[in-house]
Amino acid sequence: MPLIEITIIEGRSQEMKKDMMMNVTNAVAESLNAKKESIRIVIREVSKDHWAVGGMPMSELKR
Amino acid sequence: MPLIEITIIEGRSQEMKKDMMMNVTNAVAESLNAKKESIRIVIREVSKDHWAVGGMPMSELKR
Amino acid sequence: MPLIEITIIEGRSQEMKKDMMMNVTNAVAESLNAKKESIRIVIREVSKDHWAVGGMPMSELKR
Amino acid sequence: MPLIEITIIEGRSQEMKKDMMMNVTNAVAESLNAKKESIRIVIREVSKDHWAVGGMPMSELKR
Amino acid sequence: MPLIEITIIEGRSQEMKKDMMMNVTNAVAESLNAKKESIRIVIREVSKDHWAVGGMPMSELKR
Amino acid sequence: MPLIEITIIEGRSQEMKKDMMMNVTNAVAESLNAKKESIRIVIREVSKDHWAVGGMPMSELKR
Repeated sequence: MPLIEITIIEGRSQEMKKDMMMNVTNAVAESLNAKKESIRIVIREVSKDHWAVGGMPMSELKR
Repeated sequence: MPLIEITIIEGRSQEMKKDMMMNVTNAVAESLNAKKESIRIVIREVSKDHWAVGGMPMSELKR
Repeated sequence: MPLIEITIIEGRSQEMKKDMMMNVTNAVAESLNAKKESIRIVIREVSKDHWAVGGMPMSELKR
Repeated sequence: MPLIEITIIEGRSQEMKKDMMMNVTNAVAESLNAKKESIRIVIREVSKDHWAVGGMPMSELKR
Repeated sequence: MPLIEITIIEGRSQEMKKDMMMNVTNAVAESLNAKKESIRIVIREVSKDHWAVGGMPMSELKR
Repeated sequence: MPLIEITIIEGRSQEMKKDMMMNVTNAVAESLNAKKESIRIVIREVSKDHWAVGGMPMSELKR
């Protein structure tokens, strides 16, 4: 019963996130030979102010 | 000094969450013979759109 | 369907950890009025070398 | 640059885990229209003693 | 390519959080002899209602 | 009372990790004007087999 946490920058549409949850569930189910119903996914959205690469927040890198 | 993270669907009352934090702290303190003051709990609330079971978001499963 | 992650220093007996998992499950089920079967707990054990308080690893604080 | 954490019971072959990492990366890249190189996955393996459903460790449920 | 997650009570200024992300990145880069660009930080802010010490939410302890 | 989780590839010396924990604690304490004793760090080490970039495990990328 795999648990999957996906951390992304906020702003994607629910349609994209919904597709992602289904496609990732299928990918895990097939790769591990696991039942789809046993797979749980939690999406964690993070603000560009709260995500840094090389010490700089994404909100500044995008400027 | 146990650290506990509890991920739940958003929407519960603060009263329920407060009870849960106290009861879980007591359960861990007694089970591990640990001091209550050393126990930290963080609640993470997740939208029904961001939690999937079997690839379907909870917001759709509830319909 | 709450997900609970409990991070503790390694070294507790499986008996203690088993008690803790049952007692925490009961505490969450009662506090949130949730079904026990819907609750998942993952214990994450950490070495004393990998846990710091005030910048000092627990392995040094215990000396 | 999505970050993905996958928690599974220990014991799967590296071949299965490798397939899973590639397939999940592809699923996320396609669903979010993101570059594959920007996607990071971390697998966290958990012992059956440290994973509980309904308060019972998986190691007991499997007996 | 270290991944760092920092959980704090909400309410700090973006200036403080930006300083923290840069300073932590530098600290990790120097300590591990790692490239700054390879380091990612995610800040997770938690409400005082959702963070408990000794079973009491911070929102009550502050009163 | 910030909580910090640092995920790195396994293999660094304890000396490096100890330096990192002290330096990160100092960086967070100064940036947030927080007490050092209130800061907790957990290091999570991951095998090269369990960390993928672009879908490929680090153990293959290093070959």
